Amino acid sequence: MTDVRPDPAIDLESNLASVLDGRLATAKEASRRLARATTAEKDAALTAIAERLRARVDEIVAANAADLDAGRRSGLSTGLLDRLTLDERRIGAIADAVLDVVALTDPVGETVSGRTLPNGVRIEQVRVPLGVVGAIYEARPNVTVDIAALALKSGNAVALRGGSAAERTNAVLVEVLRDAISSSGLPGDAVQTVDDYGREGARHLMRARDHVDVLIPRGSAALIRAVVDEATVPVIETGAGVVHMFLDASAREDWSVDLVHNAKVQRPSVCNALETLLVHSDAAARLLPPVLDRLEASGVTVHGDERVRELHPSAVPTTEEDWATEHMSLDLSVGIVDSLDEALDHIRRYSTKHTESIITNDLGNAERFLEEVDAAAVMVNASTRFTDGAEFGFGAEVGISTQKLHARGPMGLPELTSTKWIVRGAGHARA
Amino acid sequence: MTDVRPDPAIDLESNLASVLDGRLATAKEASRRLARATTAEKDAALTAIAERLRARVDEIVAANAADLDAGRRSGLSTGLLDRLTLDERRIGAIADAVLDVVALTDPVGETVSGRTLPNGVRIEQVRVPLGVVGAIYEARPNVTVDIAALALKSGNAVALRGGSAAERTNAVLVEVLRDAISSSGLPGDAVQTVDDYGREGARHLMRARDHVDVLIPRGSAALIRAVVDEATVPVIETGAGVVHMFLDASAREDWSVDLVHNAKVQRPSVCNALETLLVHSDAAARLLPPVLDRLEASGVTVHGDERVRELHPSAVPTTEEDWATEHMSLDLSVGIVDSLDEALDHIRRYSTKHTESIITNDLGNAERFLEEVDAAAVMVNASTRFTDGAEFGFGAEVGISTQKLHARGPMGLPELTSTKWIVRGAGHARA
Repeated sequence: MTDVRPDPAIDLESNLASVLDGRLATAKEASRRLARATTAEKDAALTAIAERLRARVDEIVAANAADLDAGRRSGLSTGLLDRLTLDERRIGAIADAVLDVVALTDPVGETVSGRTLPNGVRIEQVRVPLGVVGAIYEARPNVTVDIAALALKSGNAVALRGGSAAERTNAVLVEVLRDAISSSGLPGDAVQTVDDYGREGARHLMRARDHVDVLIPRGSAALIRAVVDEATVPVIETGAGVVHMFLDASAREDWSVDLVHNAKVQRPSVCNALETLLVHSDAAARLLPPVLDRLEASGVTVHGDERVRELHPSAVPTTEEDWATEHMSLDLSVGIVDSLDEALDHIRRYSTKHTESIITNDLGNAERFLEEVDAAAVMVNASTRFTDGAEFGFGAEVGISTQKLHARGPMGLPELTSTKWIVRGAGHARA
Repeated sequence: MTDVRPDPAIDLESNLASVLDGRLATAKEASRRLARATTAEKDAALTAIAERLRARVDEIVAANAADLDAGRRSGLSTGLLDRLTLDERRIGAIADAVLDVVALTDPVGETVSGRTLPNGVRIEQVRVPLGVVGAIYEARPNVTVDIAALALKSGNAVALRGGSAAERTNAVLVEVLRDAISSSGLPGDAVQTVDDYGREGARHLMRARDHVDVLIPRGSAALIRAVVDEATVPVIETGAGVVHMFLDASAREDWSVDLVHNAKVQRPSVCNALETLLVHSDAAARLLPPVLDRLEASGVTVHGDERVRELHPSAVPTTEEDWATEHMSLDLSVGIVDSLDEALDHIRRYSTKHTESIITNDLGNAERFLEEVDAAAVMVNASTRFTDGAEFGFGAEVGISTQKLHARGPMGLPELTSTKWIVRGAGHARA
């Protein structure tokens, strides 16, 4: 006889699985209603969300204060605590962003292509929602509302995993979202969270192929890598940007100074900020002094290779690790190369395929750079900061995809949809 | 002291990893040249492939004979042996199919969208190859040539895993492909195989994120599931089709008889063939006798639920398993439902989201079916056999995607590409 007493660990796990399965199945069910919702219905739900966020500011701020207390006790950095903080002004900005989504074009129902086959059968490829979008992110609670609003407008339900630091804040935000959507007549179950099940909840979400159609991780390279490794649900990778600029021999000095400064300094903590500057050796003596002086005047720490340090002794030495690092800070790795080919080789080796830019007046080099660099966005004579949904005119951004399947670069609402083929015959059999 | 003798298993594994890494890195390097190849260069390579396939028929047939011998000894079924067999006629057909690819439009370089931003920056979204396409498939050696030709035309290298039964045939085909591509001046390394490393080779391919951009499994549901579970490289799922037709109360008898027969009998072993027929109870007595008689006259075995068997006693009883089964044979599961809703529920439960069709004269029911059924192709009054790249006018087909990301339904050459954003400024910094 084998021992048939239940293993309490297995029991807990199967209980967790059944609760989470139930919750994600409910999201899937809600997604079927959302897929048929009119734009007017979805816009009414978005408006209700914005209203209720403002109406329940005190409750959100109180939950956020509890998260901040816990974060301070557990030693979160000042930067992380700032990203975690919500006050009345920030909640107002989140509500405004939801109203901006109302103004966006609803992608659902668009006929992407269509034709009549020679036999008279009519085929149309029509945009449909993905279904349930899983989002895994860290620290910033505004993502909870942003992603739910964008998903809702594109007819999708969401399953959220927002990270333990913002757990109390996110719990209230999820409640507000669900209440607002229900009040407008659409199913509140379109917003689900797995936060209350911690890491096991995240793990379950990543493998819930029956109920979740896509996973979008937003956060550190480590988070994204963990999701890619663990997930069986299809993933859209976003974010990590080891972004390069190459100052070619013919680069204009004024453009070099302005664009490097803009790309590095304007907002160093975002993924389209510059991390590595490469300079052609023929232009190094001309360009590096003004470019680096301007950066240092803005507080940038220059990490330079040996040749850079000869020209600019205040630079700290680069390490091999620097070239592969997304600093997310006022640090810049700078190297000198002897040719466009050497620059292309360096970029091929260290690029995370987010954004790469060349500053040049040489047409042939510009075209080679645009053609040969493999990245979501490749630029000539422009700041890497332009890789952004708002700049590209999308109105809102789900994230910046650094992968090649489904979506590449800034993702707008259409990237939260799939298509289906509608085939209309009149008794047509295949010949 | 720990024991520091090398573990021979680990040694073997790291050796295998380094050989395969080297091979896939070579494919990646070749993909960079292919990405820049002109359409004329790629077409010349395709023409060379077709010529060399014909020139080396004897060699291919000899290798195939050895695979067939081994297959017979290991007890492969007659069907599998047939799919494995290559003779002069079939090799000629494969060569013709390669020439058909020459005639297809090259998707690379197409401007998908473009605009000038308010500040004068010009952005364009341009089609580019994916890079290295990994294909994992079974038995049919023609897939080796088909997928390589389609990948080549769309500027991609391929890494192939063709299954052990066709190993000798595929080895010769890979050699022919590589020779032909080299002879035309493009890199022969654009075609790589991992077949000589068996299952470990496949495992390595599925996890080679640094070198492989997408995996396309083609074959049984079990194969596809295994790839999805194992892979960290992004996967496009293809194929498995538990395909339904629903005969609504108002369905025309002639259309019902013709379309069900066409969908089930024309080619029962393919993924768009009919597996389950649902009939509205109000029409069962009118439609089932002529529909099922016609099927049985063509050798179909009807599996019927209790109400079907009352009307049609020659049917064998259905099991729960039948409803979830892709028979791939002249077997059909038949059930009676009392409403469109019941049909939609059944389809939601058992569909693999490939193709679903309704036969009806009721406009409201037709529109509800088209809107509510979640599948790559949904049809009204047409045979499910139309879900096919050639029928849809794509000229060739990479496979039929049953997932929602990147590609859904028949995949043509554009589905083997990604896009990148080209950004042209004139010293533009972000405001």
